Amino acid sequence: MSEFRKDPVSRRWVIFSPERSYRPNDFKNDERKDKSNEYCPFCSGNEKKSGNEILVYSKIPNREPNTPGWWIRVLENKYPALRSEKSLEKKGIGIYDKMDGLGRHEIFVECEEHVRCISDLSLVQIEKVILAYRDRYVEIASDKNIKHILIFKNYGEDAGASLEHSHSQLIATPVVPKRVETEIEGAKTYYNFRDRCVYCDILDQELIDKERIIEENEEFLAFNFFAGKVPYETWIMPKQHNAYFSTISKSQIKDLARILKRVIKRIKICLGDVDYNMVLHTSPVNTNNRIDDIFHWHLEIMPKLTKIAGFEWGTGYYINPVFPEDAGKALRDVILDEDD
Amino acid sequence: MSEFRKDPVSRRWVIFSPERSYRPNDFKNDERKDKSNEYCPFCSGNEKKSGNEILVYSKIPNREPNTPGWWIRVLENKYPALRSEKSLEKKGIGIYDKMDGLGRHEIFVECEEHVRCISDLSLVQIEKVILAYRDRYVEIASDKNIKHILIFKNYGEDAGASLEHSHSQLIATPVVPKRVETEIEGAKTYYNFRDRCVYCDILDQELIDKERIIEENEEFLAFNFFAGKVPYETWIMPKQHNAYFSTISKSQIKDLARILKRVIKRIKICLGDVDYNMVLHTSPVNTNNRIDDIFHWHLEIMPKLTKIAGFEWGTGYYINPVFPEDAGKALRDVILDEDD
Repeated sequence: MSEFRKDPVSRRWVIFSPERSYRPNDFKNDERKDKSNEYCPFCSGNEKKSGNEILVYSKIPNREPNTPGWWIRVLENKYPALRSEKSLEKKGIGIYDKMDGLGRHEIFVECEEHVRCISDLSLVQIEKVILAYRDRYVEIASDKNIKHILIFKNYGEDAGASLEHSHSQLIATPVVPKRVETEIEGAKTYYNFRDRCVYCDILDQELIDKERIIEENEEFLAFNFFAGKVPYETWIMPKQHNAYFSTISKSQIKDLARILKRVIKRIKICLGDVDYNMVLHTSPVNTNNRIDDIFHWHLEIMPKLTKIAGFEWGTGYYINPVFPEDAGKALRDVILDEDD
Repeated sequence: MSEFRKDPVSRRWVIFSPERSYRPNDFKNDERKDKSNEYCPFCSGNEKKSGNEILVYSKIPNREPNTPGWWIRVLENKYPALRSEKSLEKKGIGIYDKMDGLGRHEIFVECEEHVRCISDLSLVQIEKVILAYRDRYVEIASDKNIKHILIFKNYGEDAGASLEHSHSQLIATPVVPKRVETEIEGAKTYYNFRDRCVYCDILDQELIDKERIIEENEEFLAFNFFAGKVPYETWIMPKQHNAYFSTISKSQIKDLARILKRVIKRIKICLGDVDYNMVLHTSPVNTNNRIDDIFHWHLEIMPKLTKIAGFEWGTGYYINPVFPEDAGKALRDVILDEDD
């Protein structure tokens, strides 16, 4: 039974979720290692071991639910941080506030075979992953209780993954998270001052400076962010201004799949099989404030090379030992195969 | 040559510090393992290998600098994130802002012998550590360029430590960090609403609820915070309202040493030799806004049991799998030796 609790000082909500302790873990159980197909709940043939299918792109007609023969499966998380059948009731305990853990927690299983990294999937398969992100996003946004939908990927144990089979997650919350609010407020302040989207200006600046750019195609630019929190922090941004990921076009899905595969390949060739987090930043849903002109959706990829230490906890600032110009050059210099 | 860069959206500063990559590391070099005394730059006899002494509590009269015979040594960090000999000049690069890495980065070496954890030091020794925190704090606050002084401890590799010999750090910055500002703003909002310090109210609430309390003595209360970001997050708070750690009294130093030793012992008995971060939260310095009535200094101890994953990066929220009432009971139930 999960629960939101509010920090009375910072007014940040924390999600308490004891069920999360019981997740199976590929990385902590030696028995499971290298026997992945047998044990992995995300592999084809083990569908009954994982959560219930919410959405599936089927390879065969009239496929039975939770059986083999699929491109992508989206599942209810079996160990959810939040649940949809909760109410939004808020309670006080003395000076403290709490509320039920209402929300959604879903898993995107990105392939039938035991492939670990999204960059090893075919372009067609990656396009289907992005399509599934969009489909679930649009569906969940129709629930008026939901104010924010976060889509993210934890790759590897240090990045918080408990299973190695390629997957992403979605957590939908009944409140707009603090960091998202801060981002929007910052973008709004910039807009009020300059009458322009700050992210469009970042794109222009990167195209002038060039030294942090890693990849470019018709629809997207990938670059190491000027003030990245962690070494090799890479942003992938649509060139066309758009606040809402949910409106992504077919040609954008194609180009996003291509640039994402190439960027992750570059990171893995340059840094080895490094763990990383990938986060989709997009506008909140079901709020009164439309921010069409102000916000600009994008992906942030954060390789796990440094630790969050006392300084970061105490200040919210980050110490980054690698200048993004150096990281940009290293990633740009990687030689990829012709067919990537 | 380190440099501050500002995120144009969140307006958070990031410190770029390539020198940090060259730190020696007890945890990554097998040769160094278990030969600690020979290799450890913090051990007595190796004083010349570490940074220059800024402050020392000497055991012997007329001791030569950087030689054995000391209780506590405070050193310039040899691999500093920031340096005091920089200027405060700010520069723009197109839409981006940066400034020189002005500030201080110091190390508290907490004992001559190769002891790893502060809870294994004698009470007298821990008192001297706290005294050294205070002395450096007061000295650095006299530099008008400095706006915030953060004292913290990284224990173990996962918590960001590179050396295992018991030590703490101090980083002084020319700007008040975002998270500190948020904390103060939150405390101010509460004060304006209730005319009371939010931390004093937290203390009262904990004393009523009791179930999260771990330790108590005359001057301090230790408890698992109601909305802790990580499992077993423990706060140690002076019972008397005070915004400024720098004014800590002798009897408070004694009681803080005692409660800190007991709390860390409880954590280590309950959770094993877990890595942790400890952060001293206190008021900024040299700012125009006095916040005497509003803020309340305290220590936060965060064991490293969970990972910062995509959800945390994307939202600034945390998923905590352990309710603080359960953590509080587990830590309280630990049986300590009579003489602790």
